[in-house]
Amino acid sequence: MRLTQWTDYTLRVLMYCAASQGRVQPVTITEIAASHGISRSHLTKIVQDLAARGWLETTRGRGGGLRLLVLAKDIALGEVVRAMETDFAMVECFDPTLNQCRLSGHCRLKGVLNQATQSYLGVLDAVTLADLVPTSVNGLPPAVN
Amino acid sequence: MRLTQWTDYTLRVLMYCAASQGRVQPVTITEIAASHGISRSHLTKIVQDLAARGWLETTRGRGGGLRLLVLAKDIALGEVVRAMETDFAMVECFDPTLNQCRLSGHCRLKGVLNQATQSYLGVLDAVTLADLVPTSVNGLPPAVN
Repeated sequence: MRLTQWTDYTLRVLMYCAASQGRVQPVTITEIAASHGISRSHLTKIVQDLAARGWLETTRGRGGGLRLLVLAKDIALGEVVRAMETDFAMVECFDPTLNQCRLSGHCRLKGVLNQATQSYLGVLDAVTLADLVPTSVNGLPPAVN
Repeated sequence: MRLTQWTDYTLRVLMYCAASQGRVQPVTITEIAASHGISRSHLTKIVQDLAARGWLETTRGRGGGLRLLVLAKDIALGEVVRAMETDFAMVECFDPTLNQCRLSGHCRLKGVLNQATQSYLGVLDAVTLADLVPTSVNGLPPAVN
């Protein structure tokens, strides 16, 4: 049971931008790619997706880059994970087109796993991006290891 | 975010056996394979694993088959999922050998995702195999759809 790499990287992009709020120069994809060792092309797709969702603003050219459009304290982790994870089908019977389980009609498993997933997301709903990253004191990104 | 097929099928084997407790003839792998449309060889590996864990007894030959060694009410769903899911590394930084994230040192994400996972498993800990399946009134397996 794990989150997808897409969700993992999305969270890192958002956290990097959140940690850099207040900086004069916006964050760049190149900078995040270098900092995390993730390919630029992979990050570009993620940034495009985040821009389409209204979470990031991207500006081109000299002095351009990425900027959070929403305050970090207003982006709940549960909202991000719900948006990015397309497959919450914990077991086969969650997907009626694939389900071959013949116990489905009288089994409580699906309901219980749904309840557990909601509990998982409930924890993430209570945490915002601002809770995850250190406060940027001087507008610089946090020191990296 | 989903459980592995191994966990899915393991739960079905246990539930099938739980629903059939009290039957004169023990459940067979062939029967479960036919009922769920899962390959016998796949189920055989799962049954061997469950027998090694002391949850199932397997007997060979005529009249042989599978039988739960533990009462269904004493097998918590959380215990089964914990035993079967080998990968609770929600994101890259959970695995120190793979971790390339340079925010790790000062990021709360790992702790929050751990907390969410514990909440997920906590829901499953409160449910037993007996809660999942209909009571077998006459020792026959439940009617299938």
